[in-house]
Amino acid sequence: MPILLILSAANLFAQSAPGNVVKYHATINDVKYVYASVPPVARLKPGDILDTNTLDCFGNVIKKPGDTLSMVKGDNPLTGPFYIEGAEPGDTLAVKILDLEVDADQGVGAFAPGFGALNETNYTPMLHSPLPEKIWFYPVDHASNTATFQALDSKFSVKIPLHPFFGCIGVAPSAGEARSSIVPAEFGGNMDSPEASVGNTVYFPVNVPGGLLYMGDGHAVMGDGEVAGTAIEVPLRARVQLNLIKGQKINWPRFENDNAIMAVGAYRPLDDCMRIAFTELVAWIHQDYGLSELDAYELLSQVAKIHLNEMVDPNYVVVASIEKKFLPPKKN
Amino acid sequence: MPILLILSAANLFAQSAPGNVVKYHATINDVKYVYASVPPVARLKPGDILDTNTLDCFGNVIKKPGDTLSMVKGDNPLTGPFYIEGAEPGDTLAVKILDLEVDADQGVGAFAPGFGALNETNYTPMLHSPLPEKIWFYPVDHASNTATFQALDSKFSVKIPLHPFFGCIGVAPSAGEARSSIVPAEFGGNMDSPEASVGNTVYFPVNVPGGLLYMGDGHAVMGDGEVAGTAIEVPLRARVQLNLIKGQKINWPRFENDNAIMAVGAYRPLDDCMRIAFTELVAWIHQDYGLSELDAYELLSQVAKIHLNEMVDPNYVVVASIEKKFLPPKKN
Amino acid sequence: MPILLILSAANLFAQSAPGNVVKYHATINDVKYVYASVPPVARLKPGDILDTNTLDCFGNVIKKPGDTLSMVKGDNPLTGPFYIEGAEPGDTLAVKILDLEVDADQGVGAFAPGFGALNETNYTPMLHSPLPEKIWFYPVDHASNTATFQALDSKFSVKIPLHPFFGCIGVAPSAGEARSSIVPAEFGGNMDSPEASVGNTVYFPVNVPGGLLYMGDGHAVMGDGEVAGTAIEVPLRARVQLNLIKGQKINWPRFENDNAIMAVGAYRPLDDCMRIAFTELVAWIHQDYGLSELDAYELLSQVAKIHLNEMVDPNYVVVASIEKKFLPPKKN
Amino acid sequence: MPILLILSAANLFAQSAPGNVVKYHATINDVKYVYASVPPVARLKPGDILDTNTLDCFGNVIKKPGDTLSMVKGDNPLTGPFYIEGAEPGDTLAVKILDLEVDADQGVGAFAPGFGALNETNYTPMLHSPLPEKIWFYPVDHASNTATFQALDSKFSVKIPLHPFFGCIGVAPSAGEARSSIVPAEFGGNMDSPEASVGNTVYFPVNVPGGLLYMGDGHAVMGDGEVAGTAIEVPLRARVQLNLIKGQKINWPRFENDNAIMAVGAYRPLDDCMRIAFTELVAWIHQDYGLSELDAYELLSQVAKIHLNEMVDPNYVVVASIEKKFLPPKKN
Repeated sequence: MPILLILSAANLFAQSAPGNVVKYHATINDVKYVYASVPPVARLKPGDILDTNTLDCFGNVIKKPGDTLSMVKGDNPLTGPFYIEGAEPGDTLAVKILDLEVDADQGVGAFAPGFGALNETNYTPMLHSPLPEKIWFYPVDHASNTATFQALDSKFSVKIPLHPFFGCIGVAPSAGEARSSIVPAEFGGNMDSPEASVGNTVYFPVNVPGGLLYMGDGHAVMGDGEVAGTAIEVPLRARVQLNLIKGQKINWPRFENDNAIMAVGAYRPLDDCMRIAFTELVAWIHQDYGLSELDAYELLSQVAKIHLNEMVDPNYVVVASIEKKFLPPKKN
Repeated sequence: MPILLILSAANLFAQSAPGNVVKYHATINDVKYVYASVPPVARLKPGDILDTNTLDCFGNVIKKPGDTLSMVKGDNPLTGPFYIEGAEPGDTLAVKILDLEVDADQGVGAFAPGFGALNETNYTPMLHSPLPEKIWFYPVDHASNTATFQALDSKFSVKIPLHPFFGCIGVAPSAGEARSSIVPAEFGGNMDSPEASVGNTVYFPVNVPGGLLYMGDGHAVMGDGEVAGTAIEVPLRARVQLNLIKGQKINWPRFENDNAIMAVGAYRPLDDCMRIAFTELVAWIHQDYGLSELDAYELLSQVAKIHLNEMVDPNYVVVASIEKKFLPPKKN
Repeated sequence: MPILLILSAANLFAQSAPGNVVKYHATINDVKYVYASVPPVARLKPGDILDTNTLDCFGNVIKKPGDTLSMVKGDNPLTGPFYIEGAEPGDTLAVKILDLEVDADQGVGAFAPGFGALNETNYTPMLHSPLPEKIWFYPVDHASNTATFQALDSKFSVKIPLHPFFGCIGVAPSAGEARSSIVPAEFGGNMDSPEASVGNTVYFPVNVPGGLLYMGDGHAVMGDGEVAGTAIEVPLRARVQLNLIKGQKINWPRFENDNAIMAVGAYRPLDDCMRIAFTELVAWIHQDYGLSELDAYELLSQVAKIHLNEMVDPNYVVVASIEKKFLPPKKN
Repeated sequence: MPILLILSAANLFAQSAPGNVVKYHATINDVKYVYASVPPVARLKPGDILDTNTLDCFGNVIKKPGDTLSMVKGDNPLTGPFYIEGAEPGDTLAVKILDLEVDADQGVGAFAPGFGALNETNYTPMLHSPLPEKIWFYPVDHASNTATFQALDSKFSVKIPLHPFFGCIGVAPSAGEARSSIVPAEFGGNMDSPEASVGNTVYFPVNVPGGLLYMGDGHAVMGDGEVAGTAIEVPLRARVQLNLIKGQKINWPRFENDNAIMAVGAYRPLDDCMRIAFTELVAWIHQDYGLSELDAYELLSQVAKIHLNEMVDPNYVVVASIEKKFLPPKKN
């Protein structure tokens, strides 16, 4: 496994010259619904900062009680793609998330029949009748940084602190594939990872020239597993910085911050998500931090963290991580 | 689903008269290797406190470099069973964990061929040759409450803060079954749940008269997933208080503390662990806190926590939880 | 893997002296509901023939329209156990099925809420309401060897040719376990394998002195997967011959007849059933027929047969097989 | 579920006017490696017959001992796509397979590291070293219609009767996706279904104008499960007839012949393949043959057949079927 990711996120972005700021405003007229090789909406250089926005997963059409999911034109409209100059297959794209703001005064949660972890779905079908469609509206209080859950079947309500992140962030897939914006896989995509939030860097394999970065499906906050099928869905205003690690290849997306390294497993079933995330994490530790594979395996058995992001999309997502304080110094 | 667990752990133990303290010292001569209906080693009344100890998962025989797993007579020797007066099938047994101390100056981690999340096992066999047996010794520093990982293949070492818990805690199974001490299931057992630690109450269904509580497999600390197959394995000194909820039946183990309610799914594969834990949690919220099932489902989609305990035993274990601050007041 | 099963079923039973015929008649008063080490109902020597009978999976209580599953005292009542003289842990027990007759004029199929491959169950729970209980009665015509399906919601009926077999056949488990009669696993049990029929020999690991053979849950015929949860359930009259392969250990049950060798995988999920059945089959071919493991793997890729027996019990069952005509001559 | 497939395959092709024969010869220069919406290589009318050929899964480059998989330019080169006049999203495309001939004097089987049911793969990764690459050559005897397995590690050889079929047959996916030729899913694709053989009709959902049919990956014969990762891989000469069922939508591929109806589940894990195939089969029986869903469920529990096609591709494939002799007359 030729995995060598020697530069840390910190170094990577510290070393880069202060980049230009590229602004791009997305509307429903120019969003995309697949991760694919199509003409970019903008081009950036490594080190550049991107100021942009994303629509919510419903294309911003669910606004008030009485609105229904039949009004949605397409799920998870994506902003992009953005072409990164110099990115070639075999490189790694680094996206540091600098700022994310909820771009609305309310969020939306929806139970859609055939989607969710505790009911029949397209891929776990059963003979039961579907549960009924339901929509919850969450007023957002920007001052207190909370959204309010209001029960539909009782008067109960409660405030929930916000943690905004991209539900969708990914690049054009390999092998000429084009994948729906509801799918997470090797190219990232609909990972629904709360790790895609401010302070973290996310790495993707570059599969096509320019990499072609897409973002969307903003979440104001989400529980582990996203069990009923949606988070508190919101449009976002976003600022990210792009960078490139030339000639270094990864197989699956990764996250990193000052405190931890985090490997993504995005497939199906959960047992295989776990195997993907942890073999990637063992390889990362072995390559960049120098522990033998078996020592890394044992150490993870004592200090690993698992974040089960979601079990509702066409593939499921697990993030396995270790705090850097438990690791040797990085090689080189 | 006749689930009604109206008493909270706090109330339950507050209401009970100050109980007797029953002391029981376990040795290798009187441990058990199955959860089953056998004569108890001691009898306690609801409210009583049990002071006891457990051997490590190897029966305390792995002591120094050169020792091998072939020296182990049986995995996960269990202390017990303890008979709780008045416990009848259909009741719920509550075990509040008051104190747990590591009862040794070192812990042991071991990779056993055929056991682990990232290698061939008895139940996920492959044509690959097994990885080699390895044993790591972890010096325990009681003053700093840490254990030290020492790499076998390099000079690296690092201190790990302790969080002691019972890897095994469970009761006699239903339907006349007897289950090996390496199995977790409806009766609890080898759940490897870090939730089985000081400050938490664990609930079990009572399946036979007296309930018959067993404990063992102490862990000084463990990473999520217990991926290489063991934690830092230690003997424990333990103090727990027992109580009974008469006439209230649960299907799977549960945990509770002042801040959260936590439901266990202990089966296989992980997808089904998730479904078990979350349908139990929805039912718990619906029954005891009064939200409709769909409101509970949606709320969990925004604030649930998932703790993937282990993916290495004959069944896997997931704990799904919600903080009480997000729930309505408990009914009654 | 120390698997050496040199004697073929044919030789094994040909070599044995003509055995005694032991008769045992089971009634609802002496059936068992767990596979466990309990006093036997009869003792046989290797080579002996057993004439006995089994009740249907409902204990023969479902007799006419209006009867309900609430009348059933226990699922899968078992005839036995039978002690085989000389059987010791590490041996292999061989059971050749000589004759099976449907012992009733009708069979019963039932959909029980919480059981089945296409609906929520105890181990794949969902928030849907259970599907309703339904019972189908199948008149049996002994002359034409058929049973008749009669639709409940229309006038359609159709005859189905019979293929009687034991849904349950197994021995006392290892490690002191006792397992419910609805569970299949390493000890056999509720395998729901149509391979447990006349002309086939089934092999089990001997885990306790005497082996302790149990049988029950007769099926007049069953579709692959047993998807709605039951077959055409009937009592059986049975004649089997017992034999012993001393000092040869198998890990999982196996079937054999003149034409094929068949390995059982009985766990969960199906992916792991497949891995168990096929690694066992590769090992069997390698040990007894002398192909290298990789040659056996490749040959199976071209000529293997998979029989997915059931996906409804607490564990699922797959049988992987190869016709002997594709194998080298057996060693020795 | 609006599934109405009233026309039987027999009627469908009987009713159509005798079509033209369209000939198309594929070479390595014009094959495709994704199922996608791209310009067609030929256009046909409903009722037309297509005479064409396919390359083997290696692009016909593996020819003699010493050749290695590194010589392969792309897996599963596809012939096509073929545009069917009048096909619109919401229609069903019917492909009747009239003739298939092995177009070579030898076939190839290969074990590729990271691919197979009993070893670590990209999606079930482990810490084990990969098993070594191996290639087996199978001389084909057209007179006896057999291929010969020759062991690599011994002198054993054996003849295997041929059953040629398309490993790959599918259409352009929905939702703008493009999928690799190694993937099976809702659009068909790399199903590795021996049902894609002479005498059977295969149905696909039409997702884009023209449907866009692709074929490839010929198999001379294959064992259930394709466990080592390949069949006996061969180029094929093929003759198929195309037809269209207007305004009738299916969700997953289906097969049909004079004797049986067969539903495909092509996803992951196998448990979900089973649920997909059987809920589709229940719906098919309910819609076209008039049994209630629960009667269909029960009847399948007694007479269904399951063919586990493969457990080695990025998705797995199960075919669930019922013989027409067990069904009521088709409606209309």
